Amino acid sequence: MIMENLNPHDERPMLALAHGDPSIFPCFRTCRNAEAAVVDALSSGQFNSYGTAVGLLPARKAVAEYLSRELPYDLSANDVVLTLGCTQAIDIALTSLASPGANVLLPRPGYPYYEVFSAHIGLETRHFDLVPKNGWEVDLDAIEALADANTVAMVIVNPGNPCGNVFTYNHLQKVAEVAKKLGILVISDEVYGHLTFGSNPFVPMGVFGNIVPVITVGSLSKRWIVPGWRLGWLVTNDTHGILQKYGVMESIKRIASISADPASFIQGAVPQILENTSKEFFSRVINILKNDADICYEKVQEIPCLICPYKPEGSMFVMVKLDLSQLDGIIDDIDFCIKLAKEEKMIILPGVTMGAKNWLRITFALEPTALEDGLERLKAFCQRHATTNK
Amino acid sequence: MIMENLNPHDERPMLALAHGDPSIFPCFRTCRNAEAAVVDALSSGQFNSYGTAVGLLPARKAVAEYLSRELPYDLSANDVVLTLGCTQAIDIALTSLASPGANVLLPRPGYPYYEVFSAHIGLETRHFDLVPKNGWEVDLDAIEALADANTVAMVIVNPGNPCGNVFTYNHLQKVAEVAKKLGILVISDEVYGHLTFGSNPFVPMGVFGNIVPVITVGSLSKRWIVPGWRLGWLVTNDTHGILQKYGVMESIKRIASISADPASFIQGAVPQILENTSKEFFSRVINILKNDADICYEKVQEIPCLICPYKPEGSMFVMVKLDLSQLDGIIDDIDFCIKLAKEEKMIILPGVTMGAKNWLRITFALEPTALEDGLERLKAFCQRHATTNK
Repeated sequence: MIMENLNPHDERPMLALAHGDPSIFPCFRTCRNAEAAVVDALSSGQFNSYGTAVGLLPARKAVAEYLSRELPYDLSANDVVLTLGCTQAIDIALTSLASPGANVLLPRPGYPYYEVFSAHIGLETRHFDLVPKNGWEVDLDAIEALADANTVAMVIVNPGNPCGNVFTYNHLQKVAEVAKKLGILVISDEVYGHLTFGSNPFVPMGVFGNIVPVITVGSLSKRWIVPGWRLGWLVTNDTHGILQKYGVMESIKRIASISADPASFIQGAVPQILENTSKEFFSRVINILKNDADICYEKVQEIPCLICPYKPEGSMFVMVKLDLSQLDGIIDDIDFCIKLAKEEKMIILPGVTMGAKNWLRITFALEPTALEDGLERLKAFCQRHATTNK
Repeated sequence: MIMENLNPHDERPMLALAHGDPSIFPCFRTCRNAEAAVVDALSSGQFNSYGTAVGLLPARKAVAEYLSRELPYDLSANDVVLTLGCTQAIDIALTSLASPGANVLLPRPGYPYYEVFSAHIGLETRHFDLVPKNGWEVDLDAIEALADANTVAMVIVNPGNPCGNVFTYNHLQKVAEVAKKLGILVISDEVYGHLTFGSNPFVPMGVFGNIVPVITVGSLSKRWIVPGWRLGWLVTNDTHGILQKYGVMESIKRIASISADPASFIQGAVPQILENTSKEFFSRVINILKNDADICYEKVQEIPCLICPYKPEGSMFVMVKLDLSQLDGIIDDIDFCIKLAKEEKMIILPGVTMGAKNWLRITFALEPTALEDGLERLKAFCQRHATTNK
């Protein structure tokens, strides 16, 4: 709907500050090692065959080792299912937990796909708030109030989409303890894992797999800037074997067996990608994102009708609140985004799509000059519609 | 179950004559052009981004042009949805037609995935016979007897899996006319398209898209021997716009939009793969398959308890009937396959999994010496268990 309002007569380039995929910008080109790994796997001729239900063993082993680097225990290949990006990992996790009457707790604001896919499989969703004045931390009391005997899991997204926050070790520990108390498991969406550039380091939820079973979902898509490669994973962190005991592992493997698989030669490249990507590549991406976040936060400060309660420290997004009282003739966030598309040939996501009416989600992961261009357009738009202009 | 009966102390190589994936054999290595196309797309850095719901336009256009070469009209990119192999094309086709009470007509013997996926989405299946004495042609009278007001489609697999037959132009035309009379559409599974080596040339069902709407499903997997690449297509052949009119197109596109996509850079390689693969590569594959089919048919003639009503002329399979009266202590096809696995370390699919009890599906698409080894083991097994040995 917003896309349809782009003005075809506007000769400026269209700017999308709306999705977490900066791969079109040369500065975000993935590393040579990752590309070489895929070429090597393809050229070997060893990976043209059908895959296996859960993924090729060397690739699962490599994912287990990659994630174990940050954990107090070692994952094994048996804890890993390879998926078509993080999206299919979400599909499999939710489907494996769905049963008549079951419900799952989702963060608000939240990544809308959880909502869409839950509806598709008939899984009830309930929402707990992320609290902007607490750095978008989970409202833990809300979790306890929402859960009942039919609650199977809660979802966290860390680093945060759409809020750009990064949960602390202590906060994640509290989340684990609440989940344990309620007898539910935690689905931790770490697709933006390691993309942090503020004071809080990235802590994987799996660190607390000894407190509560954790299903981690992730992918190459964001850290390696290759969402089109469709290589993700679902990983169980479950030191007490609870998922095994209650048949969740079996259910996950059964669903994986009737789901499509990532291309075999991309699976074949996973060990080389995870083991040999240079620190320099990761640093380069982080530095651009940090710079982008600074540019975005500073520019938003110059726009009176936008309120940013939290400077992003991770992922590729920031949430800003619309002060509609300072805007003339703008009804709500959707109206804002449609008019912005029409007048400035740029796309921003209205917060209502993430459960946050009259907020906006701005993606800052762009080539910096494109980002600056976009933010200037946003500023010009807001100035043009400011009530003080009446 | 059969795999579990392989004897780990048997030091011979395990031989699988059970699935349509010969890519592990060097003689079936895909062509340089296909590999180079993927390397080129990857190395361009232009295909790391998220794809689109129905697939990248140049790839859809290339598939439309590739298939139009054999049609009396031209397909357009809008008729094509790119899928994760032919399997996901089947998923999307069946899901788009499923509604409460609907049923679909499947061939017997048939590729079992149609059964499995229909059950998964709650679509009723009914079965018409393929008749061995008529070269595995469709029993057209059975179609008319089976169909009712809730029948939405019939499926054909051509070239045939599991029967290795190739339908003639005239037979396909009759299929189209019956389907038209019944007001149902035809799903034509052409994943083995062009893999023919007998007297009947491959005729795509789309040729009759002016008689009845045809959904063609296919992929690179078999003709290019790259099932692990997961690149397939669903194509509508519908010169009268009937699918459009009844909302089937919209349903297909909606389902595609919530389904996972093939890797973007593999999509990016599709134009080069489809346009530039040499005739020599295709001939090489056909020659090996033809030679394999000859070897297989001749060897089976030497085994008294196996009856082969039809020499395969396409795909990678042949169906043979077990004459249990000539076997001692073998209960049925499953028992045969389990004991064969145990004693000869080889896998053949029991016909019952395809709706043909006491038949076997033998895959002949192996490197010829491996195929000969397998058929010798099969012969030795049958001799050892022959009633005349009592």
